[in-house]
Amino acid sequence: MRAYVEDIQQHEQKYFEKLFALLRQESISADGTGIRECAELVADYMRKAGLQPEIIETNGHPVVYGERMIDEALPTILFYGHYDVQPPDPLDEWVSPPFEPSIRDGKLFARGVGDNKGQFLCHLLAFETMLRVDGELPCNVKMVVEGEEESGSPNLEPFVATHKEKLAADLVYTSDGPMHSSGAPFVLLGVRGMLYVEFTARGAKWDNHSGNKGNIAPNPAWDLVYLLNTMRDESGRVTIEGFYDDVLPVTEIERNQLRALPYDAEEVAETVGVEEIRFDGEEYYERLTLEPTCNIAGFHSGYGGPGSKTIIPKEAMLKMDFRLVANQDPVKIFEAICAHVKKHAPLVDVRHHGYMYPSRTSSEYPLVQAVIGAVETAYRQPPVLQPSLGGSLPDAVWTKTLGTPSVIVPYANSDEANHSPNENMNVDLFPKGILCTCSVLAKIAK
Amino acid sequence: MRAYVEDIQQHEQKYFEKLFALLRQESISADGTGIRECAELVADYMRKAGLQPEIIETNGHPVVYGERMIDEALPTILFYGHYDVQPPDPLDEWVSPPFEPSIRDGKLFARGVGDNKGQFLCHLLAFETMLRVDGELPCNVKMVVEGEEESGSPNLEPFVATHKEKLAADLVYTSDGPMHSSGAPFVLLGVRGMLYVEFTARGAKWDNHSGNKGNIAPNPAWDLVYLLNTMRDESGRVTIEGFYDDVLPVTEIERNQLRALPYDAEEVAETVGVEEIRFDGEEYYERLTLEPTCNIAGFHSGYGGPGSKTIIPKEAMLKMDFRLVANQDPVKIFEAICAHVKKHAPLVDVRHHGYMYPSRTSSEYPLVQAVIGAVETAYRQPPVLQPSLGGSLPDAVWTKTLGTPSVIVPYANSDEANHSPNENMNVDLFPKGILCTCSVLAKIAK
Repeated sequence: MRAYVEDIQQHEQKYFEKLFALLRQESISADGTGIRECAELVADYMRKAGLQPEIIETNGHPVVYGERMIDEALPTILFYGHYDVQPPDPLDEWVSPPFEPSIRDGKLFARGVGDNKGQFLCHLLAFETMLRVDGELPCNVKMVVEGEEESGSPNLEPFVATHKEKLAADLVYTSDGPMHSSGAPFVLLGVRGMLYVEFTARGAKWDNHSGNKGNIAPNPAWDLVYLLNTMRDESGRVTIEGFYDDVLPVTEIERNQLRALPYDAEEVAETVGVEEIRFDGEEYYERLTLEPTCNIAGFHSGYGGPGSKTIIPKEAMLKMDFRLVANQDPVKIFEAICAHVKKHAPLVDVRHHGYMYPSRTSSEYPLVQAVIGAVETAYRQPPVLQPSLGGSLPDAVWTKTLGTPSVIVPYANSDEANHSPNENMNVDLFPKGILCTCSVLAKIAK
Repeated sequence: MRAYVEDIQQHEQKYFEKLFALLRQESISADGTGIRECAELVADYMRKAGLQPEIIETNGHPVVYGERMIDEALPTILFYGHYDVQPPDPLDEWVSPPFEPSIRDGKLFARGVGDNKGQFLCHLLAFETMLRVDGELPCNVKMVVEGEEESGSPNLEPFVATHKEKLAADLVYTSDGPMHSSGAPFVLLGVRGMLYVEFTARGAKWDNHSGNKGNIAPNPAWDLVYLLNTMRDESGRVTIEGFYDDVLPVTEIERNQLRALPYDAEEVAETVGVEEIRFDGEEYYERLTLEPTCNIAGFHSGYGGPGSKTIIPKEAMLKMDFRLVANQDPVKIFEAICAHVKKHAPLVDVRHHGYMYPSRTSSEYPLVQAVIGAVETAYRQPPVLQPSLGGSLPDAVWTKTLGTPSVIVPYANSDEANHSPNENMNVDLFPKGILCTCSVLAKIAK
């Protein structure tokens, strides 16, 4: 490891220059700005890191794929990242321009620095360092850098399904998102899935006068209220038939992981924006990572302005998202929701706005154990193990479509402000990320 | 009656000119446009109709009051109307300008023609006709024409409370609103009251990410959904303790009135904007006039745009209106609602946006019986008797504050489009209204 550390130190200026050039290249998937140029830059970086790059077209923005196959007998690790970024608005809230990287107070500010350019670049620079230090990588590497993650990765699953053989690997390794808020390194073993459903109840053809038509015109807001009350009890347990059928029981290993996770109730309360959090650490992490949700994301009907308007609304609209845990299937859950609505509120219209499968990888896989050890070596601190992220990422593309274990090891600081103005990455975490990837490759090769 | 009919015919042109002049005088209570000038014009009309007028200041726009007291032994009838009108927007939907009266296809179009200038003016012109034909009115008359009805009559109740002696009468008579949709004359014996309540539930200080904080951050939309479900059962019956305590039982007389009301389920369905109305006439009118409501007028929380946004909303806001029937007390009902919320959702914030008392007058009062007969004489058709309006008017100002029976006899066509562009009154209903007031005065005097 010492040789890697020294090589990274020697080349730190060059490595930061590469990062700056990548950050200066706009690549906004939402409107396509700079996407093609950025894909070519990434392919160029792959070539310089010893990978054979290809720009592979999809129905949307292209995937940049690269590989360096040394020996089929060695394990193969597939790195996943994305070169696209969120739009930078609101521009006037940025202290320095979003596509002009700027260092202040130990932080590098730029759109995409943490999400995800400054993280996937660590892998490529680790390959450069290892090739220079060892003459060859210790195992086979493949790399997928897509250009649509900030638009929901609509073409990633078909891409993976089409290129299963090309992508065949023993482990998928993703560096994205923030490290644990305690500052500890973080190994994430899965994600919650997601199903977003919209319900529409219709009453009369127009809003009616609540006096002249009160008790006569139907009120669709009441219909949705009644429906909602058949979907969840007051304790928060979902009462849709079959909802919990496929939820995996929490294993003893997972429970130990939950208990071992750093927990500061006050800090959590501050992050959430509430006075107090009433859960202990184990319950907190179980609710957040191993339990599904049934969330009202939006409910809109009738008058919402100041004062009073006396109407019976003609329509009520409800948006819900369900975070799902392994092994719930969003397609089956959507069917269960449709059946539930058919039974309790047959006139309510239901449709979904997309879904994502949940994903979970066992920490007992030997390669996952190797990653955990490698991260500890790189950061000189044992990583925090979390069985799942509370949020959703297209991780099932790897565990379900490709059928490969997958771990997420974030390299960015917990206050990276991804998706927000003044996105940043702590300057010292960039060389640490490079070292971590070196450590992972070295450990996996053993 | 024949003499009145002839006099009205002879003076029809002059009477219409008076109406036109009144309609040309803008009088928008919302922004005060022309209010003072209109009040003066009404006072002038009162003087010409033989009344002693006064412009009485209030905390808002002035009341125009007039009276002609002939003999204390004779009955006194108090006429109520309002000289203010709704704003005319959207202006581009008017076929002819709102303050330039225009006759097309037997209808007179102008803002305020039905609501209420063309109706209260009938009373004044009836006095002119009777004074000319008989030399004197057959009974005492008083008249209150206020300037804030379209702004919710905020100063009417204090005005009446302050001037109880001045306003003392045996019956209050109001002509406002549309006649029955069947075209029949209409005698309304009361109104539903109203209480408008706003509920606010607050969760975290900001919207949280539904993945990263799902099952952790509180969701105030769910709080309001649970609260709503404690307030009304699925049959629509309100389950707030004490809500029905003061509701008067339906009398046999009222039930007979309900049964006698013209009812066309198809026409009602068309007016409401639904495929079908499943009530028979008796149930329809009972629900509409003698039963209180518990209506969701607006529910807003979280995301309402297209597609999906995965948040846990920080706030949820609910607006409800409760139409109340005799003898419910909106103040007591609001207290019951507050107690209910305190019990079921103590963190939800409750406030009201005003209320109006319900009002009901017995059809058995002799003067009310006289009005019913007089209306039949004028229109040559028995009037439709309805125990209450579905909507709310400040009628309790008369029955409760002043302590006087009150009837509402609308003189405008059912499609008068009050509050809308192209407000209108059927040309032939204007002289009929004048005749009806003559008939009422004549009958009451007996």
